[in-house]
Amino acid sequence: MKLTQDMNDFLVEDILEDLKLIERELYTHLESDPPLLGEIATYLISAGGKRVRPALTLLGFKAAGGEDIQIVIPISAAIELIHTASLLHDDINDGSPIRRGQITCNRKYGDANALIAGDFLFVKAFRIGGMYDWEIVKIIADACSKLAEGEILQDYNRYNTDLSIDDYLVTIEKKTASLITTCVKVGAVLSTNSPEVVEYLADYAHNIGMAFQITDDILDVKGTSDITGKPRGNDIREGQLSIVTIKALEMTNGAGRKRLEEIIKKRENSDEEIEEAIAIINDTQATKFAYDLAIEYADKARSQLMKLPESDYRDNLELIIEMIIERYY
Amino acid sequence: MKLTQDMNDFLVEDILEDLKLIERELYTHLESDPPLLGEIATYLISAGGKRVRPALTLLGFKAAGGEDIQIVIPISAAIELIHTASLLHDDINDGSPIRRGQITCNRKYGDANALIAGDFLFVKAFRIGGMYDWEIVKIIADACSKLAEGEILQDYNRYNTDLSIDDYLVTIEKKTASLITTCVKVGAVLSTNSPEVVEYLADYAHNIGMAFQITDDILDVKGTSDITGKPRGNDIREGQLSIVTIKALEMTNGAGRKRLEEIIKKRENSDEEIEEAIAIINDTQATKFAYDLAIEYADKARSQLMKLPESDYRDNLELIIEMIIERYY
Repeated sequence: MKLTQDMNDFLVEDILEDLKLIERELYTHLESDPPLLGEIATYLISAGGKRVRPALTLLGFKAAGGEDIQIVIPISAAIELIHTASLLHDDINDGSPIRRGQITCNRKYGDANALIAGDFLFVKAFRIGGMYDWEIVKIIADACSKLAEGEILQDYNRYNTDLSIDDYLVTIEKKTASLITTCVKVGAVLSTNSPEVVEYLADYAHNIGMAFQITDDILDVKGTSDITGKPRGNDIREGQLSIVTIKALEMTNGAGRKRLEEIIKKRENSDEEIEEAIAIINDTQATKFAYDLAIEYADKARSQLMKLPESDYRDNLELIIEMIIERYY
Repeated sequence: MKLTQDMNDFLVEDILEDLKLIERELYTHLESDPPLLGEIATYLISAGGKRVRPALTLLGFKAAGGEDIQIVIPISAAIELIHTASLLHDDINDGSPIRRGQITCNRKYGDANALIAGDFLFVKAFRIGGMYDWEIVKIIADACSKLAEGEILQDYNRYNTDLSIDDYLVTIEKKTASLITTCVKVGAVLSTNSPEVVEYLADYAHNIGMAFQITDDILDVKGTSDITGKPRGNDIREGQLSIVTIKALEMTNGAGRKRLEEIIKKRENSDEEIEEAIAIINDTQATKFAYDLAIEYADKARSQLMKLPESDYRDNLELIIEMIIERYY
């Protein structure tokens, strides 16, 4: 089950309509001279990401009582531009071949062009940001800084089998949860003067961001590529330690642990070796541990959400929690 | 003669003092968690660029009558951060080994880390931008878009011996003149309500930007690495057409033209072949043509500048014109 496919099945009708406006807004920022640059920048955007982040901004805005969405449309588009820019740059750094079912921008247009297209999208996003108060710009810029910090941490800790669960949680907060939090928080700040409401929604978003990354990391060893769109064991292949591998290393001893460590530290593994590592992990309770933690985050997200007044938008935000948790099991 | 070395010899005392404040400001934006990211981002900044762009912003501000420089310090730092980010990304794309007399950031820390450090600097710059009116953010963001467009154009036209002088001028406007213009224009906008004064200063800056890039391109065939800090014939080596090579191709016939075209189009050239191409170019009047055009831009810059009231700052801006022109001949 893909989070984003199902999301569109249950979103409130007016949010789906608003998303169409954001979609139109996105394309107004992609023109360039020469047109080639805009074409490169458009390539990934038009591959049909499901706009989870703009949807979260809209839901945050409306769940906090906001009505006139004109104020939230440009900034929702800006956040999607930033997300796309970060994907373009990630794919260069990881040498990824496929994204959203098509060859990556860097494979199609070359690393240099994809790098510049990412810069172009960042700049367009911050151009939009300039329309807003400094408070909004700071929230977004600080999330982008965290994104960069998360990337550096992740790369630095590659192949590091001494990584702790706490290190992992710090990294995923920066790499995933911070931009998710920003989406909802920006919507809330533009909607209400109540610092409490902003705090509840931001906490909700932080916790779903954490739960989302944890279930994503579980799917890397438990899922099939039908579900995730990615080959299984990708993190292990890339030497990325996740909560699952860290916990499995803690929970195994002797030959099993030694072999798992060996495979994680190796630069090139065969498919058989990846499956061997997955088998060792699945012999432990590591995914159960990870899943329990994801549920804890989900529960925290729900309890923050329930402090808001009832609304269709709050219901949508609650369904998103369920979906994240139900992706696995 | 290096533009930036000499600039510090003649700058008005208070501008030199202001530059120290900007230097301090720069470093306040380079902290990160983990510190490694800030360290990578600091690497090029601390290599001692001469801060031409902040100096231009300060001079634009003061030549237009501005006095309280507090308002111009953060944005001057932001422009320097953007310039640095673009150098980091350029060096990745060009695979450059040396920048400011030290190995490039990408060689030292790896392409992936240098790419992220560039993103980090962009984000910090736009975070600062959020303090200012949208007008300022738009001026800067639009210059950054042009920078990206210029990079794409330059790469697209590599090895293209059919490039015209007009194509070249469009490219250098985007790649070089637009950010130079932005520096001075931002200073002026923050200083005065007079649209005429802003226009004179922006035109001045556009014209020195164009003259600067043209003399830079002349130095690539006429200079020595003592003067430029770069090996001679670098543009030819990289297949970059400049005003000098474009004009030389127009001015030669027969075997000379054929050979020049051949060397420019070739992916790998020996030092002898580069010198052979330079000899063909120097047998024509191409550098004279280019220099005459640089003088034209310099004259336009001066005539715009002279529309401003006399001041030490205006004198400094005029000396910058002289320096650009005197770099060659």
